[in-house]
Amino acid sequence: MTNKDEPVRPEARLPKGFSDISAGEIRATETMLATIRGVFESHGFEPFDTPALEYSDALGKFLPDQDRPNEGVFSFKDDDEQWLSLRYDLTAPLARYVAENYQNLPKPFRRYQTGPVWRNEKPGPGRFRQFTQFDADTVGASSVAADAELCMLAADTLEALGLKGQYVVKVSNRKVLDGLREIIGLNDQKHDGRWLTVMRALDKLDRLGIDGVCALLGPGRKDESGDFTKGADLDRASIVTLTSIFEPVEDADEKIAQLDLRLRDSVIGQEGRKELEKIWSLVATSSYDDGRILIDPSVVRGLEYYTGPVFEAELTAPITDERGQPIRLGSVVSGGRYDGLVERFTGEKVPATGVSIGVSRLFFGLQRLGKYKVSVAQGPVVVLVFPDQPIENYQRLVNRLRKPDDGGPPIRAEMYLGSGKIGAQTKYADKRGSPCVVIQGGDEHAKGEVTIKDLILGATLTSIKDRDEYLKKRAEAQFPVPEQKLVEAVRGVLSRHKA
Amino acid sequence: MTNKDEPVRPEARLPKGFSDISAGEIRATETMLATIRGVFESHGFEPFDTPALEYSDALGKFLPDQDRPNEGVFSFKDDDEQWLSLRYDLTAPLARYVAENYQNLPKPFRRYQTGPVWRNEKPGPGRFRQFTQFDADTVGASSVAADAELCMLAADTLEALGLKGQYVVKVSNRKVLDGLREIIGLNDQKHDGRWLTVMRALDKLDRLGIDGVCALLGPGRKDESGDFTKGADLDRASIVTLTSIFEPVEDADEKIAQLDLRLRDSVIGQEGRKELEKIWSLVATSSYDDGRILIDPSVVRGLEYYTGPVFEAELTAPITDERGQPIRLGSVVSGGRYDGLVERFTGEKVPATGVSIGVSRLFFGLQRLGKYKVSVAQGPVVVLVFPDQPIENYQRLVNRLRKPDDGGPPIRAEMYLGSGKIGAQTKYADKRGSPCVVIQGGDEHAKGEVTIKDLILGATLTSIKDRDEYLKKRAEAQFPVPEQKLVEAVRGVLSRHKA
Repeated sequence: MTNKDEPVRPEARLPKGFSDISAGEIRATETMLATIRGVFESHGFEPFDTPALEYSDALGKFLPDQDRPNEGVFSFKDDDEQWLSLRYDLTAPLARYVAENYQNLPKPFRRYQTGPVWRNEKPGPGRFRQFTQFDADTVGASSVAADAELCMLAADTLEALGLKGQYVVKVSNRKVLDGLREIIGLNDQKHDGRWLTVMRALDKLDRLGIDGVCALLGPGRKDESGDFTKGADLDRASIVTLTSIFEPVEDADEKIAQLDLRLRDSVIGQEGRKELEKIWSLVATSSYDDGRILIDPSVVRGLEYYTGPVFEAELTAPITDERGQPIRLGSVVSGGRYDGLVERFTGEKVPATGVSIGVSRLFFGLQRLGKYKVSVAQGPVVVLVFPDQPIENYQRLVNRLRKPDDGGPPIRAEMYLGSGKIGAQTKYADKRGSPCVVIQGGDEHAKGEVTIKDLILGATLTSIKDRDEYLKKRAEAQFPVPEQKLVEAVRGVLSRHKA
Repeated sequence: MTNKDEPVRPEARLPKGFSDISAGEIRATETMLATIRGVFESHGFEPFDTPALEYSDALGKFLPDQDRPNEGVFSFKDDDEQWLSLRYDLTAPLARYVAENYQNLPKPFRRYQTGPVWRNEKPGPGRFRQFTQFDADTVGASSVAADAELCMLAADTLEALGLKGQYVVKVSNRKVLDGLREIIGLNDQKHDGRWLTVMRALDKLDRLGIDGVCALLGPGRKDESGDFTKGADLDRASIVTLTSIFEPVEDADEKIAQLDLRLRDSVIGQEGRKELEKIWSLVATSSYDDGRILIDPSVVRGLEYYTGPVFEAELTAPITDERGQPIRLGSVVSGGRYDGLVERFTGEKVPATGVSIGVSRLFFGLQRLGKYKVSVAQGPVVVLVFPDQPIENYQRLVNRLRKPDDGGPPIRAEMYLGSGKIGAQTKYADKRGSPCVVIQGGDEHAKGEVTIKDLILGATLTSIKDRDEYLKKRAEAQFPVPEQKLVEAVRGVLSRHKA
């Protein structure tokens, strides 16, 4: 029992895996989101938003034999005993919306959505429990032309963000994997678990290399720490068949021909091959076959709900951390076809395909590549305050800047509101990145004057050796003007330091 | 126990008290937020964001004698047995941040923040469980000049949103109420509960009128349904003293003089009166004393953490619902000084004052007043698709529109991706609000032509009586052009229908 009379002082701390976001980062992210929005809009997608919370069963994470919904999501019970969860992606809420409103939607329905998603997972370096996604989906279109369009949308977006030549979009098809499953004889439902082990193994090429993957497809693998992971126990021939998807073939047509040969005896596999062929034809027609988009059967994608084409984009430019160590960033865009997600609710198949940008991860990558720099924006003009003068005078000055009567745009300005002396007030203005401060002591007020002090120019004064030059610059950096000329004089300083 | 083999089909439904947001509403809200952001920036505030989740005790809603954190917030236990809650406002997370980072902040610290907040309350008409707030706070400034500035910020914001002459900002001070408490002899801590009843009664003037409030200050009140609410049991003299705050006095100086008289014997009351006087002086200096800002001691504000000036803005323009019935919207902006909120963490007082705009509620009010209309934006140009033609041809046309080679801006365009016939495709384009569609059948393709159909002009054709006029207009509404002239022709149609 806690003693209620004793005041409990909570510790001020951010929850693990979450972060506060600074002004510079917010401004840079906004710019980035606006660019993405522009590309998505040009492709005909319309904005749409869903709330942060959904009924847990609608998210498909509810397991009826557990007391709580599945791990990985943040969930809690409502007053009326229903489980609610914070969305873990933007696709599941879209499926809920489409199932609920299918009759009234234009078909196909094309929407984009951006916002935070939450994962109740162990946080780690660069691994947050709240992060932003930016999705576009086309619902009600079964043609693979819709998938091809999304691959091109991904390429257009990355290019608009300044990544020309520094990314690649890789396309595969779940049906190709399904065909391989058929061919190695794991088609029966009773092999579902084993097949999942296979998929997970194939998805680890990046981290484990081909030998690691083969070990996981076979008896299993011991990692550096000595821990042993049991494998899928496949025979040699099956492993060769499966890992053929990793065979490097430069030419897309050749790669498709190779798939054709390998999937000769699988109907589903042939379907996948044909869809890849069609996507490639559309990509080539639109001249994205110049290395920006590749056919790559090794794309697996973790999510289980994909039913056809799958794709992911990664940055090809090497990315390093603060200490110059290379970082494996993973895919920054991913997506695919999920024809069964609406069916979960309605029992009727609704074809759908979508693409998701991991905004937080991509932003991190762009930062490391020196794009979308987080910079401190120019701060407001600060009107300094002498404690022996009526504060009303300073309020009048700051109002004049915010609502200038010269017909020009408002000037960002604030009156100093703390209790520091003039020196501390100037330091505050410096810390805020203010271009200049406005000073009016008693004498100046009596003369109807103000002094403008250019902080940016002022900071350069000490480096001037020549005395005449110094005096000239000092006069430019700090000068009195009649109060009537305040706006004009401040505008002068601002234009002096325009980026 | 649920049978695990039986597929459970979840119902597709939005959780109670939450809403999906349409394209038109998103666009209108974005415009509104940009306007607010502009005003806040001009006042020198910098953007800042905190995550959606905080440790429950940091939000101040944790009651140690209950199994779960306080009602009213969405909370759940983390893997490491810590309670997390969705933020219910933007002030508590700010206090957590300031307590955590005080040493490194510029002082005063001025930040603005916008985002959703969540309340685990019973939803009702116009009462949502997720809504957006837009806050500005000045932390580290004890001067009431900071409070006065926020009142002016509120006025500037509402004016920038087009509400000139349709709102009023009312200012009071918690210390005035504290003074009245002292004067009626309820100062002792043992009267805390009774005083809370008094505050709640005073806060109900809007809904119950003066007689209802007096009943609640006295023995109690029976409402229309016959339910009886126990009152604060004050004597006649105390009730007269308290309700004096509602006495209508037009002139602010007169109102302040009246407070001076009534609070003669209360030190804290006099402090409050002096602060109001100072705020009024700053407001008057800045010419906001023209009816935009009023001194009104009847402002109580529900939140318990206020310690000094409190203020709220409401719309004075009458607002009605869809059926023309008047709606009591309540305050759209509110705020005040909360010098004790950071102290909860650190034990040291940090002066702070803030203002919060109820964005969702204000947006609703603006809608009802006919501003920020939710309109359907012009949809993309739709390239229709004939099933007997290679889809690659259409992909090429749509790409040409999105990346025009005339150096002009991209044209919003999409290729039809559904399975409808040409008529259904045109209807789809209509539903999307497309200005025109691009048609290319086999014959046209052979001739290297496309047909542009202006849907907006086309919709007006049926109303034309005169045959020559009709033929002329029809020729304008649907016409062939060489494929090379596609961009030029579509731009022509777009400029024809520019807003």
